[in-house]
Amino acid sequence: MNTVYLDNSATTQVCRPAADKVMELMVEKYGNPSSLHTMGYEAEREVAAAREAVANILGAKPREITFTSGGTEANNLALLGAAHARRRMGSRIVTTSIEHPSVLAAVQQLEKQGFEAVYIHPGADGTVDPEQLDRAVNTDTILVSMMWVNNEVGSIQPVDQVKRIIKRKKAPALFHVDAVQAFGKLPVKPAKLGIDLMTVSGHKIHAPKGTGALYVGEGARILPHTFGGGQESGLRPGTEAAPLIAGLGAAVKALPDTMEQLQQMKELRDYTRERLLGLPGVEINSPEGGLPYLLNFSATGIRSETMLHHLASKGIFVSSGSACAKGKLSHVLESMGLSPDRIISAIRVSFSRMNTREDADALVRGVSEGMEVLARAK
Amino acid sequence: MNTVYLDNSATTQVCRPAADKVMELMVEKYGNPSSLHTMGYEAEREVAAAREAVANILGAKPREITFTSGGTEANNLALLGAAHARRRMGSRIVTTSIEHPSVLAAVQQLEKQGFEAVYIHPGADGTVDPEQLDRAVNTDTILVSMMWVNNEVGSIQPVDQVKRIIKRKKAPALFHVDAVQAFGKLPVKPAKLGIDLMTVSGHKIHAPKGTGALYVGEGARILPHTFGGGQESGLRPGTEAAPLIAGLGAAVKALPDTMEQLQQMKELRDYTRERLLGLPGVEINSPEGGLPYLLNFSATGIRSETMLHHLASKGIFVSSGSACAKGKLSHVLESMGLSPDRIISAIRVSFSRMNTREDADALVRGVSEGMEVLARAK
Repeated sequence: MNTVYLDNSATTQVCRPAADKVMELMVEKYGNPSSLHTMGYEAEREVAAAREAVANILGAKPREITFTSGGTEANNLALLGAAHARRRMGSRIVTTSIEHPSVLAAVQQLEKQGFEAVYIHPGADGTVDPEQLDRAVNTDTILVSMMWVNNEVGSIQPVDQVKRIIKRKKAPALFHVDAVQAFGKLPVKPAKLGIDLMTVSGHKIHAPKGTGALYVGEGARILPHTFGGGQESGLRPGTEAAPLIAGLGAAVKALPDTMEQLQQMKELRDYTRERLLGLPGVEINSPEGGLPYLLNFSATGIRSETMLHHLASKGIFVSSGSACAKGKLSHVLESMGLSPDRIISAIRVSFSRMNTREDADALVRGVSEGMEVLARAK
Repeated sequence: MNTVYLDNSATTQVCRPAADKVMELMVEKYGNPSSLHTMGYEAEREVAAAREAVANILGAKPREITFTSGGTEANNLALLGAAHARRRMGSRIVTTSIEHPSVLAAVQQLEKQGFEAVYIHPGADGTVDPEQLDRAVNTDTILVSMMWVNNEVGSIQPVDQVKRIIKRKKAPALFHVDAVQAFGKLPVKPAKLGIDLMTVSGHKIHAPKGTGALYVGEGARILPHTFGGGQESGLRPGTEAAPLIAGLGAAVKALPDTMEQLQQMKELRDYTRERLLGLPGVEINSPEGGLPYLLNFSATGIRSETMLHHLASKGIFVSSGSACAKGKLSHVLESMGLSPDRIISAIRVSFSRMNTREDADALVRGVSEGMEVLARAK
């Protein structure tokens, strides 16, 4: 049975250059980057090269990149680190109701510590209205956190509008963007948009799980969240996971041209969408203008998990909402105001450059069969 | 030039079974362990198997094992998580002056938050006296943190005495042990010694960097330090780094018999020590009863860094104190009361099962030459 892997927003296969690089650093260049001898330097050079690769693609300086164990850690470092650093300037945190659980949970933690949180809801297209943001940001606002691309429906948020609003409202706020689903897929240049802190993850772009980074713009000072041996300029101590970091660098270097790739994904997504819409009972939940790497749809009448297992039995792997929200009703689709029927039958398909039209055909065939067989079984 | 790697307490070469396992999960079983489909289960099974392997060697239950990105994160989770959970029961934290920077820095952070810390100093042999601990622990003590094996000199701490003292003093304290240098090298069974929380790291035992675990004994409740998608029972969220975790499991399974290995290391260490003592001006800083994997000595008159670079030029890799303390005077050797002359010329040699007598011979030859050449150059 062929594997048709269409769950690339949950995680991706590690690409060959990244996997080979990880191997090289595990068994050959295995020194501790903090060691003062040749083998330490050799590992440190690999870490520096990876830092440069990540900085380059972000239009950032290498010293603005702090490596972490992944997106969740980077989001926590950004939110807790920024809020604690600006505690004396105000207490309001403005975010959206459709953030990743690692942002929402960190904000809830800050609420317990006395910060006030304002959650902006998106419209039916899964996109937040900048005017609502404008109303929420005030002179007491010390942090605005907004994702670039939503991980369940692919809606692109107005991250280009935020800095202007913060300035106009004279808010002492740092601006954080969770760019986990945008990194490597859109031209993501934080400095251009006045982003102070930005989270990226490796395993969504064919780098190994266990690696990510936080962009901390030159002017932005945040407090560390973990304490130890001073690595990563004291912001994220612990022996640098050199094989993973170098693997992230290799995966970044192996990324194809962003705009060309985006065009190819758009063709694949549009093709998949048209074919799915040809099936009676299918409704598309992703907005027209969403990131083409993602397509969320509902096969009305069939519960997500049932369809997911039917597809898995054919070797086709998709997601019911987000893998991080195991079992729970999607807070994103709820925020968008979708009907419960549509939410409980939602399926997320997510593409990577490894996917083809044949994969889309297999998916549509699987969904079509599923709707027939499973509806009959009810 | 042959590589003689004698810096295994800084980090180790990943062993073949672990490296192969990491590769397998990066390119074949690459699903997200939280995904609900077959590829998710497959990755989850690998994580579960690794959890069982780590639990087994610790005589623990799988649910007592929480995977982290390494020792530093596990130490932070243990210390901050325990102190915050027990905040209402008292405010004293008792630890030692020779802990790893990630313990000392986390305790200092807790001091800033209003906790009181008591640091016990070791004797000249690098070992803490249980009587001093007994005097420090009181009914206000909520946490005792003591390393099992010191990372610079190999001294073994009286971790078997601590629970008894906590009980006798009626202290509401959790007992945390940083076992990074003991794990896989000594028979380390936390439950037997009444240890509540114990930190282990992967990359010191031939698993990849970027993985570690915190043992949290059944009765011990601590608060999470990172917030997100609920992975690792909510204690450590973020997509499980399945390749690394499985690599840790494979490395644990590949460990030779602890006691046999200990005997071999003892022979290698004793051989190295005797030969080094044959060189005029060499003094041994590690205690007689220390862990045989480690040997700290001073080549009096030659600065550590100078000797380290001389040895590196011959392909022999050692450490000046600990790699985490880059540049700073060793706080461990200072605590032991060693003279400044001896501290600034200290060299740490650390063995693994990959080392041989030939490596020891190369080291002794290198040190001998170094003492001649470098003393003349002064």
